[in-house]
Amino acid sequence: MRLTAFSDVSLRIMMLLAGAEGEKLSTQTIANGVGTPYNHVAKSVAFLANHGWVSASRGRFGGVCLSEAGSAATVGQVLRATEGDIPMVECESHEGSCPLDQSCRLKGALAKAREAFFAVLDPVVISELPSQRQMGPVFVELGLGPLAQTKKLEHAQKLPQS
Amino acid sequence: MRLTAFSDVSLRIMMLLAGAEGEKLSTQTIANGVGTPYNHVAKSVAFLANHGWVSASRGRFGGVCLSEAGSAATVGQVLRATEGDIPMVECESHEGSCPLDQSCRLKGALAKAREAFFAVLDPVVISELPSQRQMGPVFVELGLGPLAQTKKLEHAQKLPQS
Repeated sequence: MRLTAFSDVSLRIMMLLAGAEGEKLSTQTIANGVGTPYNHVAKSVAFLANHGWVSASRGRFGGVCLSEAGSAATVGQVLRATEGDIPMVECESHEGSCPLDQSCRLKGALAKAREAFFAVLDPVVISELPSQRQMGPVFVELGLGPLAQTKKLEHAQKLPQS
Repeated sequence: MRLTAFSDVSLRIMMLLAGAEGEKLSTQTIANGVGTPYNHVAKSVAFLANHGWVSASRGRFGGVCLSEAGSAATVGQVLRATEGDIPMVECESHEGSCPLDQSCRLKGALAKAREAFFAVLDPVVISELPSQRQMGPVFVELGLGPLAQTKKLEHAQKLPQS
């Protein structure tokens, strides 16, 4: 069974933003980080913003980051939004033409199974998934360096001289 | 999320054969009954026969029917066989190129969710799914008539004259 490419990229974006720990990233940076073309990423960012899971702002100090709701969002929530309307089998789609469609009990069984799939993912908080081992090299590759160290350096520079 | 067309047709074929209650059907009849091209049906029949779920024989009295194992087979069993190797997300496929692939915890969560999906379908016996309401019109359309009545007629003709 296949999740859509849209679901795939949406989850990658949220995981990358979670790894960014509040740093705003440009759409292009995100595209590089998730290995997906800019236009696909832009479409997903718009979708995620519409759902309130990311904040996107333009301008010199703009960029994309997880919102508070996004930091609490789960894989189940996001996939219900990205996959919810996708037909699992042909009879569920508008052009469906299965001759066995009438009073078919398979449909109900499949619907229950899909619900079980989502239910396993409902408690999986996306922002708790990334690890340093996963994200470290990615952010170095993006030229953003180890972010925690960047923050420490910025903080140190603001301390009064002893 | 989408099941493959191969899964879709395989389930339809088994449901149709279950509705045929032991009657052997030709591959062409099955193709008409499930609304799928002959070659796709033939491929699935070969697969189902390899798994021991259908018996397929050639010749004048040949045809395809559910085997004893097929009569007990469940949706979960069949889908594990038809979907088991299908990558759910890009990183699972050979050409996968997700930059976040390293130590990714999302993969494990998705694998658990897929297992939950199959688990719901593991007890659903395919041969218990079809109903008269579902199959009746299909078999009339196939020119096979209401099969139960056909059997009663054949049986009555064999009875000694009273």
